[in-house]
Amino acid sequence: MKKLLNKPEEYVNDMLAGLYQAFPDQLSYVDDIHSLIRADAPVEGKVGLMTGGGSGHLPVFLGYVGKGMLDGCAIGDIFQSPSIEQIVNVTKKIDSGKGVVYIYGNYGGDIMNFDMAAEMVEMDDIETRTVLVCDDVASAPDKKRRRGVAGMVFAFKIAGAKAAQGAGIDEVVRTAQHALDYIGTMGVALSPVTIPAVGKPSFSIGDDEMEIGMGIHGEQGIKREKLQTADEIAEKMMGHILDDMKIPAGAKVAVMLNGLGATPYEELFIIYKSVREILDKNKIDVHRVYAGEFATSMEMAGVSLTIFHLADDELFELLDAEAETPFFKQFQK
Amino acid sequence: MKKLLNKPEEYVNDMLAGLYQAFPDQLSYVDDIHSLIRADAPVEGKVGLMTGGGSGHLPVFLGYVGKGMLDGCAIGDIFQSPSIEQIVNVTKKIDSGKGVVYIYGNYGGDIMNFDMAAEMVEMDDIETRTVLVCDDVASAPDKKRRRGVAGMVFAFKIAGAKAAQGAGIDEVVRTAQHALDYIGTMGVALSPVTIPAVGKPSFSIGDDEMEIGMGIHGEQGIKREKLQTADEIAEKMMGHILDDMKIPAGAKVAVMLNGLGATPYEELFIIYKSVREILDKNKIDVHRVYAGEFATSMEMAGVSLTIFHLADDELFELLDAEAETPFFKQFQK
Repeated sequence: MKKLLNKPEEYVNDMLAGLYQAFPDQLSYVDDIHSLIRADAPVEGKVGLMTGGGSGHLPVFLGYVGKGMLDGCAIGDIFQSPSIEQIVNVTKKIDSGKGVVYIYGNYGGDIMNFDMAAEMVEMDDIETRTVLVCDDVASAPDKKRRRGVAGMVFAFKIAGAKAAQGAGIDEVVRTAQHALDYIGTMGVALSPVTIPAVGKPSFSIGDDEMEIGMGIHGEQGIKREKLQTADEIAEKMMGHILDDMKIPAGAKVAVMLNGLGATPYEELFIIYKSVREILDKNKIDVHRVYAGEFATSMEMAGVSLTIFHLADDELFELLDAEAETPFFKQFQK
Repeated sequence: MKKLLNKPEEYVNDMLAGLYQAFPDQLSYVDDIHSLIRADAPVEGKVGLMTGGGSGHLPVFLGYVGKGMLDGCAIGDIFQSPSIEQIVNVTKKIDSGKGVVYIYGNYGGDIMNFDMAAEMVEMDDIETRTVLVCDDVASAPDKKRRRGVAGMVFAFKIAGAKAAQGAGIDEVVRTAQHALDYIGTMGVALSPVTIPAVGKPSFSIGDDEMEIGMGIHGEQGIKREKLQTADEIAEKMMGHILDDMKIPAGAKVAVMLNGLGATPYEELFIIYKSVREILDKNKIDVHRVYAGEFATSMEMAGVSLTIFHLADDELFELLDAEAETPFFKQFQK
């Protein structure tokens, strides 16, 4: 796989250097460049919100740091957890005295380090809470064992809007958790991804094959099948999601069609047409559509579909609120 | 190349069906789905702005129809010109009596059809003007013979902001043309693209090769070389652009790093770091950075770099003005 880089081992450092230079009014860091914060952190009177995880998923994670969303992000190497020290440094910097909520994907290494960091900042009297994102319906039958994928963007949006309203820490956690109860994602991968420092593809897949339910680090999915039509792929993804989420007729949802890195925008809308037919058949209305690259795996081809059931008025209000980050801009609806 | 589609011959139709369903408040069409307009067209008291061209380049062209940018777009099949009839239909619908400016890339088929359409709507007393985008410095030494590529997004932004201020048709044309005098683009392709109905790659390129100066339909570039480092690639692109544009020390520019379809966001920022070093050396300041997918070639890997020299106060003001389209959102700076 061809990559635009200088040295593989400098991939993340060079990317971060470019990022800080590109958005100097919006992004800054504490101590080292892997501990990213909003340039105006801490925001007085607001609960701090932070995330973290491995690199290689832009805009996830750091791309959602900004107004109406997150306050900071601890950045690991490609597909690697950030360190405890990075998490501690960001936490201390973004806390305005109202505490900090950690909201991130359900991966073992991240949990271990965030939990350790929480214990350490407790000694500085900083209160923290944790919200784990477990939205990938394909990754396990038990919700708590599921991986966190593109649905985390909706969780950042809801928690961020709630915190921006001045809610307290428990209220932010409750709202984020409530939103996540109504968010499900399913993905299909068509090609592997190459970690720069490894230099060879993470798995092999035939020229006419797709993997249903694959994770964004190339974790095994539910099934390897022959590549099918957009209609058939949408039916498989929607089938799993609807089975899992039990969305009632008459409900309204937000839909996210997420390209994994190498998927043309055109094809996201072809899939959306197929998804929409299934939603219509189930008498489920669409409030908003997000189509683009929100949570990628560098140059992986494929798509993920996230359905967010807007189960009450507050979720509409928080989803529709204004937000402005380097990678996510939304005017109030 | 794997594609997410139903039938290759329905690729554009299915994409458009999905698009209209995704953005019903923002996009509509006249007569047939290939003649796209703003849902609120015509905008009273405003010069109409339209573009057009082949599909396969999302967000170009139709993605920039919306507040602060364009009013309509005539949509061709993959890499094909739109028809005269489509252009006529859009023109009639977006004209509020102040005339319509056609602003599009310098391709023969498009020019022929836009010119014919202009003659036809003249019979309905609709005044039109044409602004050709010729920003690809690699495509010809003579500026007028150059292809239009990602720099057209800056032209849409400037012309759109000027029209939104209520300027007359000649003033909008003058301003767009003035901006284009200060816009240059150069691209590097790493992989070919496959037209769905053709089913095989448009050209072949070695696993360790890149093509410098390639067009977004796979038109031949300046040179085929071995893949080089991000620093070296940035130096080649910047070298051509700076030679051509003669930007003085102390000037300010906007920079666009555009992924051609399959390029990870991460790598756009790695390239930006390299570009920035060269700008710094030349004492050229950066006012704004746009990094993402703005003008693609479906699943082509590679990058283009556009430099927009903000040569006077009006260009800053118009670039920084608010805009909101399905694919381009910008808060006022």
